[in-house]
Parts: sequence; structure tokens; C-alpha cells
Amino acid sequence: MSKKPKAVVLLSGGLDSATVLAIALEAGFAVLALTFRYGQRHQAEIAAAGRVARAAAVEKHVIAEIDLRAFGGSALTDDIEVPKDRKADEIGGAIPVTYVPARNTIFLSHALAFAEVEAAHDIFIGVNALDYSGYPDCRGEYIDAFEVMANLATKASVEGKRKITIRVPVIKLNKAGIIRKGLDLGVDYGLTMSCYDPGPDGAPCGRCDACLLRLKGFEEAGVADPLCYSSGGGG
Amino acid sequence: MSKKPKAVVLLSGGLDSATVLAIALEAGFAVLALTFRYGQRHQAEIAAAGRVARAAAVEKHVIAEIDLRAFGGSALTDDIEVPKDRKADEIGGAIPVTYVPARNTIFLSHALAFAEVEAAHDIFIGVNALDYSGYPDCRGEYIDAFEVMANLATKASVEGKRKITIRVPVIKLNKAGIIRKGLDLGVDYGLTMSCYDPGPDGAPCGRCDACLLRLKGFEEAGVADPLCYSSGGGG
Repeated sequence: MSKKPKAVVLLSGGLDSATVLAIALEAGFAVLALTFRYGQRHQAEIAAAGRVARAAAVEKHVIAEIDLRAFGGSALTDDIEVPKDRKADEIGGAIPVTYVPARNTIFLSHALAFAEVEAAHDIFIGVNALDYSGYPDCRGEYIDAFEVMANLATKASVEGKRKITIRVPVIKLNKAGIIRKGLDLGVDYGLTMSCYDPGPDGAPCGRCDACLLRLKGFEEAGVADPLCYSSGGGG
Repeated sequence: MSKKPKAVVLLSGGLDSATVLAIALEAGFAVLALTFRYGQRHQAEIAAAGRVARAAAVEKHVIAEIDLRAFGGSALTDDIEVPKDRKADEIGGAIPVTYVPARNTIFLSHALAFAEVEAAHDIFIGVNALDYSGYPDCRGEYIDAFEVMANLATKASVEGKRKITIRVPVIKLNKAGIIRKGLDLGVDYGLTMSCYDPGPDGAPCGRCDACLLRLKGFEEAGVADPLCYSSGGGG
């Protein structure tokens, strides 16, 4: 067994969380990756998470089932149409229909359970306050409040043991900054998948907010996106 | 549709949450009951939640699947033995093996998603700081921290709308007090199920911590427990 301290890393299979995983490894953590099957329209991102976890040789990769469809309320879990071809200034302002109610709270709660069982004290999440300013649960003040709550929620907190730290290493980076950081750390973005609405062949659409932000990020970083897009994006 | 304000009530099928449901109804809320299937050893408590929800004629009863077994770490989800026949002073001190890591955090996170989708502003949970002092996530300070976090997590909080309130109406009552309160409100405790380890016929064991606390509660309240116990408890 590894003597490194353990950290739980929330791994969606997208670009941000793949970068965060590389940052956690670089920081010397033994990584416990956690991915959710939550009624996504497509399973392509879970496959991507598996590829990223294998490439990074994580200690453990758990795929937990959760049932966000039970409540509805989002284009990512319901039959609401995913918006396409929005302009940059339309993305990130108002809360988009792709917002999943309380998603990061549910994800972090599971990460907290995993951390407690594994005696890990660090939880990494790839939230980004810049590109996702419309998502309440991507803001620093939300993350801080979650950390306070987490440190009252666990056995370790009652027993006076080491605190839980929620780490958000890309929260202040833009997409290009995240990509540059990841490339420095050797992340293979060809393994990742960011699309909200991939085609039947699993190819990203190139037109949803997530694809548009990703493409813009690669453009600004001055490198080509290694993915092949359904609709001819990807530089 | 009801014009009453909506409230999400976490409903386990046990005595505490059945009482809390009655309190929410009495307070004038239209109740959205939420029960979890989380890899319990027995499904008897989900059946009990269904009976309680039907008897109370709730607006909606959602049973959400969650996968706490993915992480392990508790006698309620793993193959660890549930302790039996413990003395009153052994129950509630140290954190018991029946503690499920981060369970209330995961439950409340889902309740928050449900509340957000349904535009409910109140979440009721039957935590009890007295009988479950060993559970970190049953303490008032934990609940307060969750509420602060919840009010940064949601769309409504960003848009400056009404706050989420986490209501814990039985947190300071002992079991006898909860039972008296519930009987005043007409709760039929014969529909509920508190046991951690019911027999194959679904009958409560009468010997686990939950059964022992329940039996003691009925004794102190001076009424008979309407349930039939496997091992001859139940007054």
C-alpha cells in the first residue's frame, strides 16, 4: 500500500476534473477517484472518467449510482433540450437549464462519505467560478461553507482528528489556464469528454456550452483540441 | 393543487421521522416525503415509510436510490454485525458501528435538490441530539452549518429568493417526548419500523440499539408499543 496521504478526487471525465486529478497526483496524494452515474443522457463521460483514471493509475476508482432523475429539473437529467450555439456572452450569465439542482452538494456529500471511510482528509473538486459563474455551487463562498459543514459532519470532527479540506485548484483559472496547467502536467485531453450532448457515436457535439467553452479554451491556449467533434469543431 | 407551502420531509419509516411528518402537516405544509434505498440490509423500513406516507396522504413520496455500499464503513450497509442487547449507558456515547459515514449530509443534499426543483423552502429531518449524541450529523451545530451551506448552494440563493430552512422539531426531545408528541398528533406507530436488523418476517429484533431506545421510549411514555417483536419485546 502507498504511504502517501489519500485524497478523494471528483472525476467527471471532463477537462477540468482530469486537470484537477493531475494536480492532486503532482501534490503527492494517492488518489481515490469518484465518478457518478446519475441519469446522464449519455454514458460517454463515465467512459472518459474510466480512461482518465486508468491513465493516471489511481489507487481506486469508485463509480457511485445516484438518482437525480427522481427529482428532475435539469436539461442534463430530463428531456429538456440542451442549448446549442450560444455566444460566449450568453454562457455563464444567468443560471442555464443545464444546471442540476444541488449537484455539487450531492457529489461532495458522497466524497465526504468516501473520505471518511478511507481516512482521507482532502477532497478535490474541479469547480470553476469563472466559466460557470451562473452555477451557485461553483462559487468559493459555497465551497467554504461546505467545508465548515463537512468538519461538523464527520466522526473525525467529533473525535478532534484532522480536518477535511475541500481543494478547488482550478476555481480561479479560465479554460485556457486550466488547459495550459494540465498540459504542463502531462494530461492527455484526448481521453476526456466535456460535451453535454454527445452524438450516438460518443463524439462531442461541438455546439453545447461545454463544447464551446472547451474549444474557446484550446484556441486561447494556442493548442489544438485532440478530440474529433461531430459538427466539425476541434480546430 | 394545494395552496399550502411545500416542505420536503425525510422519511425513514422509523418513529422519529413519522412524528416529524405529522408535525410538518400540523404546521400547515404540503408534504413531499423523501425516502432512500441505500443498501440497507432489509427493506422493511422502506415498506414502513410507504405505509406512513400513505396514511398521512402526502402530496408526493419519492424513493431515491443511493449507493452508500460503494464506500462501505457501516454495520447498516456492510457485513459488520449490528450490536445487540447493549445497556442504555452504552448507547449514545461513542460513535456506534451503525453510524453511516456522512449519511445525513447525503440525505439532506438530496432533500435540497428536491426542494429546489419543487420550490419548497423547508426541509424537515428527524435528527435527535439526545438519543444519538454519538452521531456527529445529529447535532444542532451541524444542522446550522448545513443550512448556511444550503443557502449558498441553490439557484434561489443566487437570485435573492426565499431562504431554505432546515427544521429539526424533535432534536431536543427524548424518545418518550417524541412518542407523546406523535400520539397527540394521531401518529399510528404500528405503521413504523425502527429496527436495524429485522428478522426474515420483517419483525423488529427488539435487541438492537434502535429497538432498545424505542422500547424504553414507549415504557417512559407509559404506553404500549403497537409492534410485535421477534424476541418478545414490545411490552
